[in-house]
Amino acid sequence: MIGRLNHVAIAVPDLDAAAAQYRNTLGAEVGAPQDEPDHGVTVVFITLPNTKIELLHPLGEGSPIQAFLDRNPAGGIHHMCFEVEDIHAARDALLASGARVLGGGEPRIGAHGKPVLFLHPKDFNGCLIELEQL
Amino acid sequence: MIGRLNHVAIAVPDLDAAAAQYRNTLGAEVGAPQDEPDHGVTVVFITLPNTKIELLHPLGEGSPIQAFLDRNPAGGIHHMCFEVEDIHAARDALLASGARVLGGGEPRIGAHGKPVLFLHPKDFNGCLIELEQL
Repeated sequence: MIGRLNHVAIAVPDLDAAAAQYRNTLGAEVGAPQDEPDHGVTVVFITLPNTKIELLHPLGEGSPIQAFLDRNPAGGIHHMCFEVEDIHAARDALLASGARVLGGGEPRIGAHGKPVLFLHPKDFNGCLIELEQL
Repeated sequence: MIGRLNHVAIAVPDLDAAAAQYRNTLGAEVGAPQDEPDHGVTVVFITLPNTKIELLHPLGEGSPIQAFLDRNPAGGIHHMCFEVEDIHAARDALLASGARVLGGGEPRIGAHGKPVLFLHPKDFNGCLIELEQL
């Protein structure tokens, strides 16, 4: 079911500092910050040869990553995203296996404009997993 | 400096259950468990089209991931590993930038038989980063 690792998302307390660190200290290809008001985050994309890192910072009130940063003030790896071919088929197979899909189980349009789902970390070794249909 | 994302490592409390979940529920290509006594872990490699996931479980006394599992009993993302061409050059550049290299700063031979270094999570947004020279 799962295909490529689309990205690893890192919640960071200081987006400019983190972007500068990946650009200058780690020598990676780092994009400009992009506000995603529908998702409550500002994102910086880091392009690696085989996948992406996404730096996430809260945007506005009620950001979905604020609670994570409150628990982890230094930041941390927030989720990883796997690509799937058919998100409804993936959702149905996961539900049939007993896994919980967050947010009611209907795919939403994610930050890349593609349908996404999030799986419950308690069902997946403490890891928040996003599935994205390409 | 950093190249490909070589792998994302997940510490899991039940290696067999986690391997079965990635194989059966998530439909990924999952290898057999491999004991790495020199590193205090048993590892299951999951091959994705563009990178790997490594499931880690403590092996023996004093495993470097036991404390992580004590803090996170359900498991969690433990580290991510970026490839570098020259690990000594990477180390020197990181030290010059003020970043801390764990374990005295000398590369060790990692679980893949290649020289590796780990960077201090407090210097990298709460993320434990491994660098591996291919």
